[in-house]
Amino acid sequence: MFYHDKQLQYKVRVDKPNPVFARMLQQAIGGIEGEIRVCLQYLFQAWGSRGPVKYRDMLLETGTEEMAHIEMLATAVALNLEGAPVSMKDEFAKDSVVGAVMGGMDARHILSAGMAAMASDANGVPFNGSWIVGTGNIAANMIANVHAESSGRVLATRLWEMTDDSGMKDFLAFLIARDTMHQNQWLAVVEELGGMKGAFPIPNSFPQSQEVQDFSYAFVSTNIAGDSQAMGRWSQGPSIDGKGEFKLVKAEPLGGEPQLSPPDPRGHAQTEEMMGNIGGIIEKVKDALS
Amino acid sequence: MFYHDKQLQYKVRVDKPNPVFARMLQQAIGGIEGEIRVCLQYLFQAWGSRGPVKYRDMLLETGTEEMAHIEMLATAVALNLEGAPVSMKDEFAKDSVVGAVMGGMDARHILSAGMAAMASDANGVPFNGSWIVGTGNIAANMIANVHAESSGRVLATRLWEMTDDSGMKDFLAFLIARDTMHQNQWLAVVEELGGMKGAFPIPNSFPQSQEVQDFSYAFVSTNIAGDSQAMGRWSQGPSIDGKGEFKLVKAEPLGGEPQLSPPDPRGHAQTEEMMGNIGGIIEKVKDALS
Amino acid sequence: MFYHDKQLQYKVRVDKPNPVFARMLQQAIGGIEGEIRVCLQYLFQAWGSRGPVKYRDMLLETGTEEMAHIEMLATAVALNLEGAPVSMKDEFAKDSVVGAVMGGMDARHILSAGMAAMASDANGVPFNGSWIVGTGNIAANMIANVHAESSGRVLATRLWEMTDDSGMKDFLAFLIARDTMHQNQWLAVVEELGGMKGAFPIPNSFPQSQEVQDFSYAFVSTNIAGDSQAMGRWSQGPSIDGKGEFKLVKAEPLGGEPQLSPPDPRGHAQTEEMMGNIGGIIEKVKDALS
Amino acid sequence: MFYHDKQLQYKVRVDKPNPVFARMLQQAIGGIEGEIRVCLQYLFQAWGSRGPVKYRDMLLETGTEEMAHIEMLATAVALNLEGAPVSMKDEFAKDSVVGAVMGGMDARHILSAGMAAMASDANGVPFNGSWIVGTGNIAANMIANVHAESSGRVLATRLWEMTDDSGMKDFLAFLIARDTMHQNQWLAVVEELGGMKGAFPIPNSFPQSQEVQDFSYAFVSTNIAGDSQAMGRWSQGPSIDGKGEFKLVKAEPLGGEPQLSPPDPRGHAQTEEMMGNIGGIIEKVKDALS
Amino acid sequence: MFYHDKQLQYKVRVDKPNPVFARMLQQAIGGIEGEIRVCLQYLFQAWGSRGPVKYRDMLLETGTEEMAHIEMLATAVALNLEGAPVSMKDEFAKDSVVGAVMGGMDARHILSAGMAAMASDANGVPFNGSWIVGTGNIAANMIANVHAESSGRVLATRLWEMTDDSGMKDFLAFLIARDTMHQNQWLAVVEELGGMKGAFPIPNSFPQSQEVQDFSYAFVSTNIAGDSQAMGRWSQGPSIDGKGEFKLVKAEPLGGEPQLSPPDPRGHAQTEEMMGNIGGIIEKVKDALS
Amino acid sequence: MFYHDKQLQYKVRVDKPNPVFARMLQQAIGGIEGEIRVCLQYLFQAWGSRGPVKYRDMLLETGTEEMAHIEMLATAVALNLEGAPVSMKDEFAKDSVVGAVMGGMDARHILSAGMAAMASDANGVPFNGSWIVGTGNIAANMIANVHAESSGRVLATRLWEMTDDSGMKDFLAFLIARDTMHQNQWLAVVEELGGMKGAFPIPNSFPQSQEVQDFSYAFVSTNIAGDSQAMGRWSQGPSIDGKGEFKLVKAEPLGGEPQLSPPDPRGHAQTEEMMGNIGGIIEKVKDALS
Repeated sequence: MFYHDKQLQYKVRVDKPNPVFARMLQQAIGGIEGEIRVCLQYLFQAWGSRGPVKYRDMLLETGTEEMAHIEMLATAVALNLEGAPVSMKDEFAKDSVVGAVMGGMDARHILSAGMAAMASDANGVPFNGSWIVGTGNIAANMIANVHAESSGRVLATRLWEMTDDSGMKDFLAFLIARDTMHQNQWLAVVEELGGMKGAFPIPNSFPQSQEVQDFSYAFVSTNIAGDSQAMGRWSQGPSIDGKGEFKLVKAEPLGGEPQLSPPDPRGHAQTEEMMGNIGGIIEKVKDALS
Repeated sequence: MFYHDKQLQYKVRVDKPNPVFARMLQQAIGGIEGEIRVCLQYLFQAWGSRGPVKYRDMLLETGTEEMAHIEMLATAVALNLEGAPVSMKDEFAKDSVVGAVMGGMDARHILSAGMAAMASDANGVPFNGSWIVGTGNIAANMIANVHAESSGRVLATRLWEMTDDSGMKDFLAFLIARDTMHQNQWLAVVEELGGMKGAFPIPNSFPQSQEVQDFSYAFVSTNIAGDSQAMGRWSQGPSIDGKGEFKLVKAEPLGGEPQLSPPDPRGHAQTEEMMGNIGGIIEKVKDALS
Repeated sequence: MFYHDKQLQYKVRVDKPNPVFARMLQQAIGGIEGEIRVCLQYLFQAWGSRGPVKYRDMLLETGTEEMAHIEMLATAVALNLEGAPVSMKDEFAKDSVVGAVMGGMDARHILSAGMAAMASDANGVPFNGSWIVGTGNIAANMIANVHAESSGRVLATRLWEMTDDSGMKDFLAFLIARDTMHQNQWLAVVEELGGMKGAFPIPNSFPQSQEVQDFSYAFVSTNIAGDSQAMGRWSQGPSIDGKGEFKLVKAEPLGGEPQLSPPDPRGHAQTEEMMGNIGGIIEKVKDALS
Repeated sequence: MFYHDKQLQYKVRVDKPNPVFARMLQQAIGGIEGEIRVCLQYLFQAWGSRGPVKYRDMLLETGTEEMAHIEMLATAVALNLEGAPVSMKDEFAKDSVVGAVMGGMDARHILSAGMAAMASDANGVPFNGSWIVGTGNIAANMIANVHAESSGRVLATRLWEMTDDSGMKDFLAFLIARDTMHQNQWLAVVEELGGMKGAFPIPNSFPQSQEVQDFSYAFVSTNIAGDSQAMGRWSQGPSIDGKGEFKLVKAEPLGGEPQLSPPDPRGHAQTEEMMGNIGGIIEKVKDALS
Repeated sequence: MFYHDKQLQYKVRVDKPNPVFARMLQQAIGGIEGEIRVCLQYLFQAWGSRGPVKYRDMLLETGTEEMAHIEMLATAVALNLEGAPVSMKDEFAKDSVVGAVMGGMDARHILSAGMAAMASDANGVPFNGSWIVGTGNIAANMIANVHAESSGRVLATRLWEMTDDSGMKDFLAFLIARDTMHQNQWLAVVEELGGMKGAFPIPNSFPQSQEVQDFSYAFVSTNIAGDSQAMGRWSQGPSIDGKGEFKLVKAEPLGGEPQLSPPDPRGHAQTEEMMGNIGGIIEKVKDALS
Repeated sequence: MFYHDKQLQYKVRVDKPNPVFARMLQQAIGGIEGEIRVCLQYLFQAWGSRGPVKYRDMLLETGTEEMAHIEMLATAVALNLEGAPVSMKDEFAKDSVVGAVMGGMDARHILSAGMAAMASDANGVPFNGSWIVGTGNIAANMIANVHAESSGRVLATRLWEMTDDSGMKDFLAFLIARDTMHQNQWLAVVEELGGMKGAFPIPNSFPQSQEVQDFSYAFVSTNIAGDSQAMGRWSQGPSIDGKGEFKLVKAEPLGGEPQLSPPDPRGHAQTEEMMGNIGGIIEKVKDALS
């Protein structure tokens, strides 16, 4: 269960409110790279954890911390919205700066939320629960978490570049630091689980003898024209998981043409479909008649 | 641009059609772990690639291959649907096997698609473009791709366990093999880009001197009761990226209580909100009057 | 910011795991009546609160409590999934009970989550951030919260009826009790804010003299055939907000027919649309020619 | 069944078209606070009504009226779009007012709809059927309706503040009046159903003796630091429903630590997860070896 | 504006309630082929109509009729749900028919709606406003409407096949008849607008001289292996719009390789991406060192 | 299966990058009128095709071509984003052109994608798999495809009008030409299948004798006030499918008032609902008491 302290985890200061920046910060709240996603992702992974309890505990810790990150970002949005234009009245035509601000901000920050953060991204697209990944496989989960923190840190550095508000820069520098830690943290679990050679291929509990092994370490090239430069570490040499040797093969069809049964009449395909290649017949008749 | 061959990349055989399994296969088509996602993800990453052309070319190759995987899965769904019940008529009450099948299959396979695959997951939830990750950072993209292939391979092994149709098992064993390769492939790029110590923290182009460095390698514990077992590789020792030393800190508030301005009257908060702590006043008056 | 205790707020016990019930419990996690919604709704309302601090603090308290409710429900789902069928193999055809279970459970609990809760509803539809209401008006927010707790308590009582697992019944009886409290809690704020006569119409800060007052307390009847029984407290007598008198009026058009300008040619409507009522002309020409 | 009159319910006049305002009006059409939602919500509640016919009839009346509101708003959007820029050509760089307008309007009003309203909100996010609440409990439905009309009236007053077009202000003043009525109307039903003391807790048909009654009227405080100001009408005194006495309790865990079974091997968790606390073992071995 | 009659447009009778069929009927209410879609599509097209008023009026007529179709389907769902199991209790394990019913029905019909229709499809996926097409071009709209009525009629015939309840069959036979009419109705408008040769290509107001005319009537073949049978009416002979001659061309690239600029450093791509083809360099260095 | 050539199908040139136009182009990628939709729609129709193989082959050809269209549009977006502002810094306040650009562009093109295309529409709303129509009826599918190409060509002509970049105009003129072809192509199949008189009503395999034939060719008028101008080709004369005669009928209710059973007590409707018309009783008692 959970407790709170009314104070924030880190200082959130806005020197000069900017409603367009408020909108951009929404990406870090309700976007796919955002904090609602990581918070719920880590907590759901913890709540479903069936392996060693240390991982459950760790996920609970960091999921709980992320809750505080949503809180700080929501506060940053509210502060950036202070003084935003709430009327287009006559000044809109006259003053293009007001227009630009109003054009660039999220109108729903005014209309729906009354100058507060929402659970949506920078385009007002709502947070979506499908983004919360918990596979029941700890290694797959850790990679999902490294991914979330990587795209999250890329976003945070871009927000940092976007503004020169020193309060916002300092706050984002804190989030960037936490993303550094969390990338390392999830990678540390992968290392504990055996690292590149032990944890992969994920899941490592499936017997590779059951794979169609000719294709387990083959880079398949679909290029049919000119030189491809798609060669690299992945097209020759030992595989990263240490269990095979990379090779290069040209794409080729091994499966033949698929053959589906004709439609069930009760599915009400068009009559012509159910009469075989009637289309061709009709065409020929027409040709003959014309 | 793209070309096709009417034949399939690999043999898709169904010994005994099973409409409930058809529904489950949909997760591998239109689910977040599915092939539409990886196909478009790799292609969009290629099309937006601004770095070394070798990575663009490689992403094009594999994105194109994934298109063939969607095709095979769609064929597998169509084959598994052959002979599915298209009427509930009286047999429903009498024959619980029919009922079970009809209950467990996706009714839209009959009603909407006429016994064919759809662009949705095992619950009929449509594919969603938000799942396609392309960050403009090659390392972040590679981790996103390893993540996609990890959750995808976990899914494929579960589908393999779910069925004992030897055709389906063989086909899934091919997909599992390709997921093995693709996990290795994206990890090979990470290795090329410097591996754990060179590529991380992602993005590695942000100067870490700008982070709030006290928190860059600190595991923050939010636990306030009893023993936490959340200690591990991530709470002490050198960080995985080789740029810091893990440490453990207890969560504490550094940010004070947030202070927001009162509402703008034109935003039509409730009158009492705009009058300060009027709630308390009203309550006291009521107490006095009662 | 937030802290956690590894223990649960209330006992979650499952006497006999039931994967179909696990699916139903998902509605209380990721559905529109569920706990993710209320948790984030109360917290976002707190974080955007610009009125008396007492309401901010109260919302933080209860939002934090709801986090523990998600946790308990996620645990209940995981426990109900233990022992669920993970293979359809041959027993599917033979054993209709297995089939019924497999048909009725959420296949993604096996395929995607590895026997754990997900952030979706009983149909696997993902949680959606649009459900999180925070208007910037405390009274509108409180009514939104009473609504959430009302539909939530209705759901919980139905889940209670659905099962006879004594562990689950006890757990749900706890959630039902909390919903009782929370309905009362939000109504208590409405009372503090003036109750039916003071808080309504929401927002009470808009001057009613600006409304088209003829219609402010009129029940408009659109019925044009037979007797309507739609009369009641709302069609006569003083209004609930004490600021008007209910009356009954028949619907009638006061606005005339709308007149839109013809299309801009660069918007590429069909040529005929841009030539006025050409459709009629063409028709007449055809009539003349036939 | 339904009939129509080509005329509008109320006059919709736009003195000076403004495509940015057209976009904002979309929130009142296809947003969660909008008229499509209330129209369908009242009608679906009517169509599913199993209680006294008077409520069914009343819901039909008002649902039908709301249809006319969508119509008027759609007309208002079309009128506000007249004369909007349909080309960025060279003037974009030169004329920042055009730029601001184009930046602030919904480009899909040009590209997709040809200068007409769409079934989406102010950010172009489509209307979503999940917003339509019909619980099968009349009191829960009425509260949902008061909620819809409250957030709707807050929105309408903000739109009214946003513009100084006298035609639009008059039209919005009509909508605001209707929202006043509808708030009162749904509250009138609640009064008929027994009001605060009779209708609550919703559903009032569940025997409260079955709740975990210690928690039915307890305000649970999760605050662990400093003074909370979260006290009020809800933390002491008689409950609003008249069936209990409010009290304040500190949050505490009553449920112990959850214990989940280890993963089923066929679910392909990582091997290490299935071997118990192997993570700790591996770590110790590594320590010993280093 | 709109009026209603409490009576239904056509008789809705259910001889033997079937909650699984109730779920299937949802596809015709809130699915993409369903009646909410056509109702709102026709009305939005009417409200945005800027061409001859006869089309606006006609769209209003039929949009209003569709409202009555939603009503009848919602009634049919409610009737089919009567007597559905609302508890899994002990009989679930014993009685596989109950299990099959419960597995096949939409649990939210019990849990969320209290035995009533919802605004979602047969899988519980909510209605989505993006499905409502109104392009501002009357011919494009008519084709969208023929499409909606075609997929709608296909759905209705499959529902008719699915059941042998004579009441439901009669009701569906009415809907099928209306779909027959509406397909014809929208095609009649296309005929009025010039038919195949006059209305196409849509929009017919764009000067075809501005197209890249070499490709305006060319069937492009991407097949690169074996015989394609993709020849037909579309690969030779006069085009359907009468404005060109079909021809067959093999796909070939005319556009060269795309060249994108390197990333802006402030976008924080990975450092190696910004250093040109550094990947290759690193690889070579590694090769040299190994 | 599929192959690729690194070169583009047609030249994509941008003379002057424009990030606002990049956003608009997104509608043609990830919007409902866009190329991801048609690509997957044609391919899924091919993969599920159970009729004459010539249609399957043809759908594969064109679906594969559309893949190249997504690629070109994604390239066009990336090129239009070059040089876009990635910081709001101080110039925002000073330079309204920068502000207008930033307001009008999709911030996620910077924040999330690093100056590349995304799988979403012009408002950042993600592509949705529900838009992919494949009904299992070839004629219904062809009409769906004509619809997709009609709304797609309308969109493309509007994008063409929007810009005066000669590179973009040339590229769009190519897409417009392909849409011309594809409209003709799908109509050619309809002609092959019998044209207006043979293919309709879709599905033509359902026996029309089973329809409620009184309504199969009746234009139902719901208008109850003033003159309707809704007469035309559809209200008299032979039907387009040649199987009936259009007629005009006034809407009238044939179905009576629906009668639903009272709620099941275990569904926890409000007590008053389950007691019959208790609302009226309560009201009368109140009247008597007042």
